[in-house]
Amino acid sequence: MHAIGVARPGGPEVLRLEDRSVPVPAATQVLIRVGAAGVNRHDCFQRLRGSPPPGATDIPGLEVAGEIVAIGAEVHDQVVGARVCALVNGGGYAEFCVAEAALALPVPPGFGWLRAAALPEALFTTWFNVFELAGLACGDWLLVHGGASGVGTAAIQLARARGARVIVTAGNDEKCNACLRLGAEAAINYHTHDFVAEVARVTDGRGVDVILDMAGGAYAERNLHAIAFDGRVIHLTTRGVPGFAAPLDLILRRRARITGSLLRPLALDRKARVAHALIDQVWPLLGRGIDPVIDSAYPLADARRAHERIESGAHIGKIMLSIRPD
Amino acid sequence: MHAIGVARPGGPEVLRLEDRSVPVPAATQVLIRVGAAGVNRHDCFQRLRGSPPPGATDIPGLEVAGEIVAIGAEVHDQVVGARVCALVNGGGYAEFCVAEAALALPVPPGFGWLRAAALPEALFTTWFNVFELAGLACGDWLLVHGGASGVGTAAIQLARARGARVIVTAGNDEKCNACLRLGAEAAINYHTHDFVAEVARVTDGRGVDVILDMAGGAYAERNLHAIAFDGRVIHLTTRGVPGFAAPLDLILRRRARITGSLLRPLALDRKARVAHALIDQVWPLLGRGIDPVIDSAYPLADARRAHERIESGAHIGKIMLSIRPD
Repeated sequence: MHAIGVARPGGPEVLRLEDRSVPVPAATQVLIRVGAAGVNRHDCFQRLRGSPPPGATDIPGLEVAGEIVAIGAEVHDQVVGARVCALVNGGGYAEFCVAEAALALPVPPGFGWLRAAALPEALFTTWFNVFELAGLACGDWLLVHGGASGVGTAAIQLARARGARVIVTAGNDEKCNACLRLGAEAAINYHTHDFVAEVARVTDGRGVDVILDMAGGAYAERNLHAIAFDGRVIHLTTRGVPGFAAPLDLILRRRARITGSLLRPLALDRKARVAHALIDQVWPLLGRGIDPVIDSAYPLADARRAHERIESGAHIGKIMLSIRPD
Repeated sequence: MHAIGVARPGGPEVLRLEDRSVPVPAATQVLIRVGAAGVNRHDCFQRLRGSPPPGATDIPGLEVAGEIVAIGAEVHDQVVGARVCALVNGGGYAEFCVAEAALALPVPPGFGWLRAAALPEALFTTWFNVFELAGLACGDWLLVHGGASGVGTAAIQLARARGARVIVTAGNDEKCNACLRLGAEAAINYHTHDFVAEVARVTDGRGVDVILDMAGGAYAERNLHAIAFDGRVIHLTTRGVPGFAAPLDLILRRRARITGSLLRPLALDRKARVAHALIDQVWPLLGRGIDPVIDSAYPLADARRAHERIESGAHIGKIMLSIRPD
């Protein structure tokens, strides 16, 4: 099969199309003929490192959509021929990819491969962090830093669908406008406005209940000025500023909870629990208020351009690889 | 009435016995003729500042036990003559003190004023932080930094009573032994042993689920090496190191939750909820496995010596003021 390999640690230019063996599904896995794959920042970090986590394939790619073409001996709830989208442990940038059966969800009605492959990473990440870890509730305020990112655009829609109110930050007015169209009540251009003051203004001085932060520790202290009492701050990456530093006094006075997670190392049973919740709570809303925002799609052989695009930071929503036509 | 005033910001010597008016209970309050009062670090900080929080009496003291001698117009669940111990918003170092009726709990059978007055601050603090904020569960591991303190000795007993396993740190072997007698499975003298290595050894490399930290940010990073996945770190004070600084990577990889709270500014309804939980869950165990550990007691006029004692750090358990005989 065709797949993208990482020739050596480096920039987007180290990605190259290679011939690889089709992977064999383990007992609990399915083999998917990939229609499309999502591109995530994580893939860029793996490319820069030049190596995957221990035990994982070196082919990048954490989410795919496609058709099941084989199933493992212990898989009883998936069938050959089913159209699924799946969170995968690498290997998405390829014509075939294995996925844990528990993490393969049905392609929603009317969704093609591209839109379906844009769902898993953003929805698993948002659900686990914003709802499970931080307990965002109906009526709560959510602040999303990087609202125009793949996770950001999903978080806006999901939070709105569950009755929360959303404020975002983004790096230019076009991104801000995109976030407003998705349901954010306020969008703050962080180059021209101070988000602490804007959050205070929009929430009448109350602050937000949950902050979803993709800026590393850059906003560690300012986030604590933007949260309400009992507010939760969720970090998704150490990119940029790798440390968290803030006055403990602020944490105590606000009874803040600083937390964060990495999706990939999460245990399979926890991911499977998220998959169940998504099927129950989110799948009925797909195409009815929750829709992936797709920035651009590239052929598999142009994975390099996809990485250049995501690293430019100019995108709004998801960047995809289109591997096989619908 | 006699009460302790703070002549000016300063050391224990600024505490002096004064004549004050007996306070008048508001509609939701009771007036207590104080039998004993607890001494807390918070009282020392207020003495150093020389002023109470806005709206509070300048008389120090956050917990008392005594007899109700008057009740406010809207109080229907307390009666004159009842023996209670109460969390109070200052004013404990006095012959009379007002308390919110919702925060006055019955003196347990067989308890005198001293033992009863040693309960509120430690139990409210432990319950709110360890059980409500951090969700310590049966079978979980709890690490208490400063296990021999008033809160520490209460936390050991309460955690053990609810089926958790406890490790403590303390500053000398005598304190460590006291903690072991209270039910800690391991006690680490932090002057001679590295708690990260000891926690790993005792928990077979798993780490603890919850850390109760009274050392400010001093252990911010090391705590993250001592927790299990999904572990919670609760800070109770900014004393010592006022900032929290740690690699965000550790927070994300462990899915840590860094949090903390200050009991005094907590809203009355939240405190009242804790009071209900204590009555339900802890009061039946008092004198049957949960007993306050009392280090020493001083007459009201010797409040200065009580502050010298708590600031020496040599105490094990609570330091009390004995104001009226049982």
